Amino acid sequence: MKNDILVVGSVAFDTIENANGCAKRVLGGAASYASICASYYAQPSIVAVVGTDFTSTDRAPFVKRKIDLRGLEVKKGKTFHWGGSYDKDFNTAVTKFTDLNVFKDFKPVLSKEQQKVKTVFLANIDPELQLSVLKQVKHPRIVACDTMNFWISSKKATLLKVIKQVDILFLNETEARLLTGIYNLVAAGKWLLSKGVKYVIIKLGSNGSMLVSKKGIAQLPPYILEHVHDTTGAGDTFGGGFTGYLASLKSWDNLTAIKRAMMIGNVMASFTIESFSVKRLAGLSPKDIKKRFKEYTDMLKF
Amino acid sequence: MKNDILVVGSVAFDTIENANGCAKRVLGGAASYASICASYYAQPSIVAVVGTDFTSTDRAPFVKRKIDLRGLEVKKGKTFHWGGSYDKDFNTAVTKFTDLNVFKDFKPVLSKEQQKVKTVFLANIDPELQLSVLKQVKHPRIVACDTMNFWISSKKATLLKVIKQVDILFLNETEARLLTGIYNLVAAGKWLLSKGVKYVIIKLGSNGSMLVSKKGIAQLPPYILEHVHDTTGAGDTFGGGFTGYLASLKSWDNLTAIKRAMMIGNVMASFTIESFSVKRLAGLSPKDIKKRFKEYTDMLKF
Repeated sequence: MKNDILVVGSVAFDTIENANGCAKRVLGGAASYASICASYYAQPSIVAVVGTDFTSTDRAPFVKRKIDLRGLEVKKGKTFHWGGSYDKDFNTAVTKFTDLNVFKDFKPVLSKEQQKVKTVFLANIDPELQLSVLKQVKHPRIVACDTMNFWISSKKATLLKVIKQVDILFLNETEARLLTGIYNLVAAGKWLLSKGVKYVIIKLGSNGSMLVSKKGIAQLPPYILEHVHDTTGAGDTFGGGFTGYLASLKSWDNLTAIKRAMMIGNVMASFTIESFSVKRLAGLSPKDIKKRFKEYTDMLKF
Repeated sequence: MKNDILVVGSVAFDTIENANGCAKRVLGGAASYASICASYYAQPSIVAVVGTDFTSTDRAPFVKRKIDLRGLEVKKGKTFHWGGSYDKDFNTAVTKFTDLNVFKDFKPVLSKEQQKVKTVFLANIDPELQLSVLKQVKHPRIVACDTMNFWISSKKATLLKVIKQVDILFLNETEARLLTGIYNLVAAGKWLLSKGVKYVIIKLGSNGSMLVSKKGIAQLPPYILEHVHDTTGAGDTFGGGFTGYLASLKSWDNLTAIKRAMMIGNVMASFTIESFSVKRLAGLSPKDIKKRFKEYTDMLKF
């Protein structure tokens, strides 16, 4: 039986335009990418909210990946819908609209079962809500947390309270610099360690990811892709795969486990990037995954 | 006895301002960094020109590293002097002045001995001059070549003629995109392979380096530094170490050798970054180098 992992965050629709075309009202949201990716390693349950417009077709990828949807609240109204476009380099997403809809009043409430969960992935949501989740979980073994520039700018003090209580913090380069005011990523990571987090994971986009911890620092390359279809959800996939993998381990709190988790995050994110939405990510066979891990580890042998 | 390597390029003075301070008229130039780095693996001789203001003190780092300076022409006038400044992130160097001086009329002339050299590193100079060197060398085993955006913009056709004749091409991300008109680095690399080069090495600055070749692709992380003192010469160090290492091998034309050369380039460049000029690079002990290689390979074990 797989170990459990709780994923709290957004389940949404995305409308995306990029150099490869357009995707209208496709399944998105940080909790979707994270839970689907985590499902390859652990048993995810989610806490999220959708509107009455969220159909069984929209649920299909979760059902396929056997994700526990009992915590997916259905509220009268429309599902969160984000619209954005990317330039050809995928470096910057320009938001065209953010219709929060039912997500506006999202208050995560954990079931009794979820309160006993051993691993928690707090996807990118308001740090106040992240704190409220941490109050509800009894004795978590692993707590991982993602965030974004919006919360760093608007709720830094609350975010720092969250960081104090988490084992693993995910953020990208820009966010690490914005939150710490420090340019060098190792120095920025060390500042965050001083705030109470154990492992700082800096997501480097097409350059992989970096770890800063008291046990060691490391930078691991990406799984290289010649064709990038859409980068939406890559970071959430990374966090979900990373944390799901750790959830599956007896002993997670060591450098080897963390570096393997980084590799898994890097490699799993490469699948997300190969399609719009979770199309590629939700349909992977063990063979697909195994092949890519072999290619990745072969790349690092010399 | 070490295998020989010919390094052709600039020996210059640099005046640099950055967040860590200022360095006035210190030893610089692509051929300086490349030959000093190569000297840890092979026996470099250089072809370059300096002015009568280039003293024995300026020669000291070369002498210390036992570099053959018989091809260092001394011409009446002043040595090439570049002045520039960096912002705190070291991403962009702003040129303040470029006094070419005696370098303006540099025409590389190889001695009879140098014409028989087995490994050639063409540092970043006018592609016309790179072609003239290639005409002079008889039967090189390995030819590696660096370039820069200035030559890509002004002498693209000549540069493509050079590329056709080289085994290894070094360029950074921006240069790869500028030269090929292709954003994705693997696709850009493949375009360059189609022009006749065997191994395309894309230098990624603080993110390490990428290889594109018919034998395989790879991305290797950097040696991580918490403090960056000055990035001037890091790319030249990378190329010199990379090529010097290959020169030392019996069999260089395979994926393992090339990936090891990338590692050596990445790690040796980290030393250059720790001081102004070649101060740190020219004074390394075998222990310094060994320690850093161990840290690097340990980082990639998990």
